[in-house]
Amino acid sequence: MSSRYWSDVVRDLSPYVPGEQPKLPNLVKLNTNENPYPPSPRVLAAIEQELATLRLYPDPNSDQLREAIAANFNLSAEQVFVGNGSDEVLAHAFLALLAQDEPILFPDITYSFYPVYCGLYGIDFEEVPLTDTFQIRVDDYRRLNGGIIFPNPNAPTGCPVGVADIRRLLDHNTESVVVIDEAYVDFGTESAVSLINEFPNLLIVQTLSKSRSLAGLRVGYALGDAELIEALDRVKNSFNSYPLGRLAAAGAAAAMADRAHFENTRHVIMNGRTKLVTALRGLGFEVLPSSANFVFARHPGFDASDLQAGLRARHVVVRHFDQPRIAQFLRITVGTEEQCARLLDALGELIT
Amino acid sequence: MSSRYWSDVVRDLSPYVPGEQPKLPNLVKLNTNENPYPPSPRVLAAIEQELATLRLYPDPNSDQLREAIAANFNLSAEQVFVGNGSDEVLAHAFLALLAQDEPILFPDITYSFYPVYCGLYGIDFEEVPLTDTFQIRVDDYRRLNGGIIFPNPNAPTGCPVGVADIRRLLDHNTESVVVIDEAYVDFGTESAVSLINEFPNLLIVQTLSKSRSLAGLRVGYALGDAELIEALDRVKNSFNSYPLGRLAAAGAAAAMADRAHFENTRHVIMNGRTKLVTALRGLGFEVLPSSANFVFARHPGFDASDLQAGLRARHVVVRHFDQPRIAQFLRITVGTEEQCARLLDALGELIT
Repeated sequence: MSSRYWSDVVRDLSPYVPGEQPKLPNLVKLNTNENPYPPSPRVLAAIEQELATLRLYPDPNSDQLREAIAANFNLSAEQVFVGNGSDEVLAHAFLALLAQDEPILFPDITYSFYPVYCGLYGIDFEEVPLTDTFQIRVDDYRRLNGGIIFPNPNAPTGCPVGVADIRRLLDHNTESVVVIDEAYVDFGTESAVSLINEFPNLLIVQTLSKSRSLAGLRVGYALGDAELIEALDRVKNSFNSYPLGRLAAAGAAAAMADRAHFENTRHVIMNGRTKLVTALRGLGFEVLPSSANFVFARHPGFDASDLQAGLRARHVVVRHFDQPRIAQFLRITVGTEEQCARLLDALGELIT
Repeated sequence: MSSRYWSDVVRDLSPYVPGEQPKLPNLVKLNTNENPYPPSPRVLAAIEQELATLRLYPDPNSDQLREAIAANFNLSAEQVFVGNGSDEVLAHAFLALLAQDEPILFPDITYSFYPVYCGLYGIDFEEVPLTDTFQIRVDDYRRLNGGIIFPNPNAPTGCPVGVADIRRLLDHNTESVVVIDEAYVDFGTESAVSLINEFPNLLIVQTLSKSRSLAGLRVGYALGDAELIEALDRVKNSFNSYPLGRLAAAGAAAAMADRAHFENTRHVIMNGRTKLVTALRGLGFEVLPSSANFVFARHPGFDASDLQAGLRARHVVVRHFDQPRIAQFLRITVGTEEQCARLLDALGELIT
């Protein structure tokens, strides 16, 4: 479909396709890496308190939320940018920081939204292959570039890069921005936040959708040098002055303040992951070592899309990417104990 | 401030400056055209019901909300696009539909975000002067263009354009998109929604921030031919898959469904405007005929920025635009009876 009224940009786009939100009874939803546990009760209390002021615009700069995030990381509010989910934060980072003369670099297997942003803003890119064991090797990124971006841990593999490696990358890559997309960092990967005050070209993006159980609220943020944050602010203020509504800002600030809930939830999920990996290996799966709230696994004897279809028939949904190198893998969110049990039961039926 | 890590785009931006959100005691806030009355109670009930599912992603297409909006206008859901406030909807419309070879056209005095979007996306524009009485004359837009956009009623004047005039414009302007920004349409301006099924190049943008009292929730939408909506969807799906969170989508759908609350609120405001205009004229102001929830007024004997400062000292905030042709005007939101009384008292002190 195309129309004579469309701009050239829109005609050439290849939009991102998010994981489906199926409406099935007794659904075990393990396809979009949501947290199976609820957010902090303080989030709900903060939102309820804000309901009385919905007729008024929110603070366009979300100062209170930025302060809460800054306090969490021992940074200043000038080092924090907030947006309508980390996808919006990433979009602004592509336009503000990664739209350069040289092509940007990201892994060949990674978050599939990156090439979509490049299409939207006309940014050239080069894909850097993962190693044979699906790892990011930072030394492969030592070349002229307009910027570097990768998730840590990587998606959809779940494999992490160590902070020492990121430091080595930054020591060499001083002329362009390095964006580390830490959407899944809280499930066992070491964050590079500790490097922000040393490297003025390091931008870290995080989200409240995963470890804070708030995928439905839409809040993400970036951390970095004040000059990088200023660039994001300039784009934001040229696009939408009020990206975060009152409920999102208040709920997110409460979530950041409840450290105990956060620590508890992420550890429960990491423990669940350990059990899930063991059980999947028991069924004959090869499972990549995961530092995320999902696992990436393939079975030598069964086709991945057949397995996905068989699971779906049993109302268990997982994600499958029909693309080179990973077409035989399934990406499976770590659910509750009960959800994992239903997944394993279904797989047991399909495999034996 | 600039940084070597910024893209060329961000270096050249002139971001939009929203009206301030001052923190003053006993504030009478008449500077950002918020609705002085609360939203429908059904909105709050719908939001509370959604709190239990915040851990899950929202529907990326906001189907339920799009159905509610479509039903309200006797359109189909394929003719509805929703976004994170009408500013985001407008931003996507600029990139998807107005980024063309020829310059786009908008009034010289209008919503000051339009030239900012042009800067963000590299779109050429030409300003078409309002008449001497600050009216949009549609025949002035009959020339080669890449698109046409204006608010109806216009901002910050509040002056409307009749639907017969818009039809005449569309009869002649068939080769580019015409965007009518109806943010304030519900306060006495006739909507051009009735023309959508006739003109495949007409896009109408509305918001829930004003007449539905939901500035703090951030929901706006566009109405138009399915091919125009598809263009917006393609940009949205290349930018952020989930622009509306669960609370925003549920609250907005409830607001659209409560026609009685909507009708009552907007009529109370229109009645308040009539009284306010009469009182301002009694104080010697020239007031442009307004079809919005604000008035645009100047006093022949007093400087507008002096008046604004004097009002602010009395904790009454109004908006003043320091730009050619309108530097002697104040834009004043129609508040509650009590707020209008405090405004008029303060003006009385300043003028006599």
